[in-house]
Amino acid sequence: MKTSIGPREIIFPSPVFIVATYDGEGRPNAANLAWAGVASSDPPALSIAVRPSRYTWEALMNRKAFTVNLPDAEHVAQADYFGIVSGRDVDKFAATGLTAVRSCLVDAPYIEEFPVSYECIVTHTLDLGAHTLFIGEVKDVRVCESMLAAGKPDWNAGKILTFDSAARAYRTPGEVVDKAFEAGLPYMNRKEN
Amino acid sequence: MKTSIGPREIIFPSPVFIVATYDGEGRPNAANLAWAGVASSDPPALSIAVRPSRYTWEALMNRKAFTVNLPDAEHVAQADYFGIVSGRDVDKFAATGLTAVRSCLVDAPYIEEFPVSYECIVTHTLDLGAHTLFIGEVKDVRVCESMLAAGKPDWNAGKILTFDSAARAYRTPGEVVDKAFEAGLPYMNRKEN
Repeated sequence: MKTSIGPREIIFPSPVFIVATYDGEGRPNAANLAWAGVASSDPPALSIAVRPSRYTWEALMNRKAFTVNLPDAEHVAQADYFGIVSGRDVDKFAATGLTAVRSCLVDAPYIEEFPVSYECIVTHTLDLGAHTLFIGEVKDVRVCESMLAAGKPDWNAGKILTFDSAARAYRTPGEVVDKAFEAGLPYMNRKEN
Repeated sequence: MKTSIGPREIIFPSPVFIVATYDGEGRPNAANLAWAGVASSDPPALSIAVRPSRYTWEALMNRKAFTVNLPDAEHVAQADYFGIVSGRDVDKFAATGLTAVRSCLVDAPYIEEFPVSYECIVTHTLDLGAHTLFIGEVKDVRVCESMLAAGKPDWNAGKILTFDSAARAYRTPGEVVDKAFEAGLPYMNRKEN
């Protein structure tokens, strides 16, 4: 039996996307965004939802570029800080001591200390009411070497954060329940019998 | 030091969205989609990326409606099965024995046994190459009563699944590292000093 809780955007899991941009004066800024995900595979593209009132919104419109940086458990305080103050009021990189590195591919900085960074060009925008949805084509992904296993990121080894909006908390990756593209095979065999 | 791995859409975490629709003959179908997320808060909206070759794509275009159903660890096999066969070839509800319930709000079925369901109307589509991004306005959310705590879902108690595309595995929610909107406060105090 399920209970109706009304129209809500409360899902699980949500990513912790630290979106970095340059403002109108070329200063690096970073915002914590959770309403985000993969938008397409080819070309690889990510979606990020940004309120027009946010400082990052202006930067995205002006520069048409951003990076997404995934924080690990070690950087939870800095990641959270990026979501509770505005780049209009403070220099978040100065306050946290993190390093903004200019991307060679897109007009945006990435965060050196965070273990994974995606360098993106804005290709589409969609006005959806409270948020504008920005689609960013991924031009490159940088991963901390210690997190790479057979050319792919090991998210669990890297302790990459997940946002739990209901609990208002950050979580590490949980236990593996089962393998994808294998757990469901018994239902296929059942059909063939 | 980070290593470039080229343009990829490999992020963490990804949700496990079981998207249910009616096909042209009114038969319920369900697909497993991970390239998805929140698109806006007001009105609440979700994004799902669907390849035009998929059977669900036709249903979304025709019916302009879908539900998203979040599986728990108990239903990992059924959730995975929804991603490895096509509704063109098999009746996935018959194969799994799960129950498709007609929504009163949108022209799509939801899955009774899965603990959370979102009933959505398609409001926008965006052609992004390999995938079409569908935006669905959420008209209602239904949550299993045993998972509700103070009107909000307890994702950890519900053992809601996360997709780890790098490990090709499903995970449960992990440990809480810190509180959102609080972990970063020390950096604010530092600024004020």
